[in-house]
Amino acid sequence: MEELVYLDHAATSWPKPPEVAAAMLDALQHSGANAGRGNHSLAIGTGRVLVRARSMLAELFSISNAQDIAFTHNTTMGLNMAIKGTLQRGDHVISTMTEHNSVRRPLEYLRRTLEVEIDYLRVDSKGQVDLLELQKSLRRNTKMVICNHSSNLLGSILPIGEIGDIAKSHGAVFLVDAAQSAGTLEIDVAQMNIDLLAFPGHKGLLGPQGTGGLYIAPNLDLEPLMHGGTGSQSENIEQPTVRPDRYEAGTQNAVGIAGLLAGLKKIKSLGTANIHRQEWLLTQKLMEGLSGIPGMRLLGPGIGVSRSGIVSFTIEGQESAEIAHRLDREYNIAVRAGMHCTPLAHKAAETLESGAVRASVGVSSTEHDINRMLVAMEELYGFARSR
Amino acid sequence: MEELVYLDHAATSWPKPPEVAAAMLDALQHSGANAGRGNHSLAIGTGRVLVRARSMLAELFSISNAQDIAFTHNTTMGLNMAIKGTLQRGDHVISTMTEHNSVRRPLEYLRRTLEVEIDYLRVDSKGQVDLLELQKSLRRNTKMVICNHSSNLLGSILPIGEIGDIAKSHGAVFLVDAAQSAGTLEIDVAQMNIDLLAFPGHKGLLGPQGTGGLYIAPNLDLEPLMHGGTGSQSENIEQPTVRPDRYEAGTQNAVGIAGLLAGLKKIKSLGTANIHRQEWLLTQKLMEGLSGIPGMRLLGPGIGVSRSGIVSFTIEGQESAEIAHRLDREYNIAVRAGMHCTPLAHKAAETLESGAVRASVGVSSTEHDINRMLVAMEELYGFARSR
Repeated sequence: MEELVYLDHAATSWPKPPEVAAAMLDALQHSGANAGRGNHSLAIGTGRVLVRARSMLAELFSISNAQDIAFTHNTTMGLNMAIKGTLQRGDHVISTMTEHNSVRRPLEYLRRTLEVEIDYLRVDSKGQVDLLELQKSLRRNTKMVICNHSSNLLGSILPIGEIGDIAKSHGAVFLVDAAQSAGTLEIDVAQMNIDLLAFPGHKGLLGPQGTGGLYIAPNLDLEPLMHGGTGSQSENIEQPTVRPDRYEAGTQNAVGIAGLLAGLKKIKSLGTANIHRQEWLLTQKLMEGLSGIPGMRLLGPGIGVSRSGIVSFTIEGQESAEIAHRLDREYNIAVRAGMHCTPLAHKAAETLESGAVRASVGVSSTEHDINRMLVAMEELYGFARSR
Repeated sequence: MEELVYLDHAATSWPKPPEVAAAMLDALQHSGANAGRGNHSLAIGTGRVLVRARSMLAELFSISNAQDIAFTHNTTMGLNMAIKGTLQRGDHVISTMTEHNSVRRPLEYLRRTLEVEIDYLRVDSKGQVDLLELQKSLRRNTKMVICNHSSNLLGSILPIGEIGDIAKSHGAVFLVDAAQSAGTLEIDVAQMNIDLLAFPGHKGLLGPQGTGGLYIAPNLDLEPLMHGGTGSQSENIEQPTVRPDRYEAGTQNAVGIAGLLAGLKKIKSLGTANIHRQEWLLTQKLMEGLSGIPGMRLLGPGIGVSRSGIVSFTIEGQESAEIAHRLDREYNIAVRAGMHCTPLAHKAAETLESGAVRASVGVSSTEHDINRMLVAMEELYGFARSR
């Protein structure tokens, strides 16, 4: 069978640059000790890797103090830290229908336990919110505005700069879920008025699974989600206030973060804007090709409009899972079918019953990959109606 | 300078077996996709690694259903899940003075926010609890009993079988912190009446940092610490009840878990009892040698008594940090000095002011390592009083 075409970058980037594996191997062999806990040379070497990765993340997101970034297990953990650490009983929060369950489920949990009030802004079928609706939804007790930078189903890019402006003018804390944008879309926390930024290490930043982070603006004091050892102020029964220790209880994934550091160097050498442009061109080629398939419905922004590397679609009369299965088994092409953990976005796109097939490109995707996908789709579904 | 002698296994085991790096590399290259989210072959390969690791963990701890194990970022996360998921307003909990801050800080947080009542059982200078005091501390509202299997400062092994018996007879949930015992001391959750078992992947189990787990007895329903996507029941606004999904929101550290699986295979081939015996013999040799140093005070159980691989000590008139620093710089020997995140254990040992030096052996430690350490200590401190 032909070589694998991987179009599931929205789940995790693959393959990782070879430098990532090399850096992880080196970390396992030469700095495998615990950062911030020991005073011997191995432990100090481990600490240095964390410092460098933190500092490259700060540079990437225009964060002035790298200590305001805490490493996390995944984006979900960062979002839980941000949401549960900020909202209190009776607060109001505004979010959107494009959010992933990693935002919606924490919010619904707080609705159930702390009577937090939630508004999910409607999105149109292209995956866009109405800023005027946001403005009108603000209430006296609106504590927080939460949105993802790009929908993991529709590929739409939300205007987080404008949303941040509106949130700031109301004094609300602004949380951005950068699961589908960190490393591929420009993010500037100062300019965009972002107070909290949750991001994965293993998607656009090209690191391994088990890495991610949360930026916490210096003026915010979140109650930590995790309490425990930090190697600092051990005699204090409270979690220390010093950052990043306050938000990094327990042993950190130093080996994974060494891999993330290698991914960040790769991103820096390529340039975020270049990555985005290349990915966008590939999505356009994919969409143009797919649009010729009978019964095809492309979700999200139309051809020619800005979007992230995600292209989701349905074909009338075809099961999404079956499409993905046939691409995998008959053509060795990896895409993803289903709900993608975002039921409200499906509601907006009217695909809640059918689910959708999601093809997502990444830094390693090529025109050849798109051609292979289009040939496969043409062979499988190109003449569906005439048969 | 001579080759590194690594005696900081209680922080993290090092070096890892070569199979661990090989398995991680393989996972990065061949199963780098997201487990349980995609339906293509790469994602299925990733899922298989998680299934195998879970099943080896179940075997190791005599857990009848591997789905009752959730993977975590570290032991701290498992302990936070267990403690915050179980205790409610006004509950009483019994713990011990040997606990790490990863137990104490979550408890003190719940005391502050939910008025949870806490008793820390005293430990004697050898690191042992009084079971009669435990029996007498039980109250009508005692919801939970928590103890570590082995003190990370004193090396004492707590009688978790007996403690589990007492907890069970009272109907209390029994949580064991196996940070210093998983992989090196026998653990049988059924026989020991353990309801919750938090363990690291990167210490005695020889996996990389960023791995760990929590066993949750099937009859317990903890509120998850993290809410988010699970790839299952996506349309449900509540965290699914199916295990392990309920306790594993977001992308899991599949590459790290592949390394953990390799570590587990190594542990199985060596045999936990053999590992413990070898480590114990090394601690005895170390203690016998150290006991000749003027002003030496060995903490924890005496020579000839069962203990884990941890040997902590102080030397009259010497700073602990200085001892560790000189061993590192002059002899290339890695030990750890300080509070070790367990201030109450220091209080029991009367070392709260001085801290202590901790030397800890692991599966890769040798007699040669102990000899090097003893020669160094003799040269540095052997004649301190006669000079």
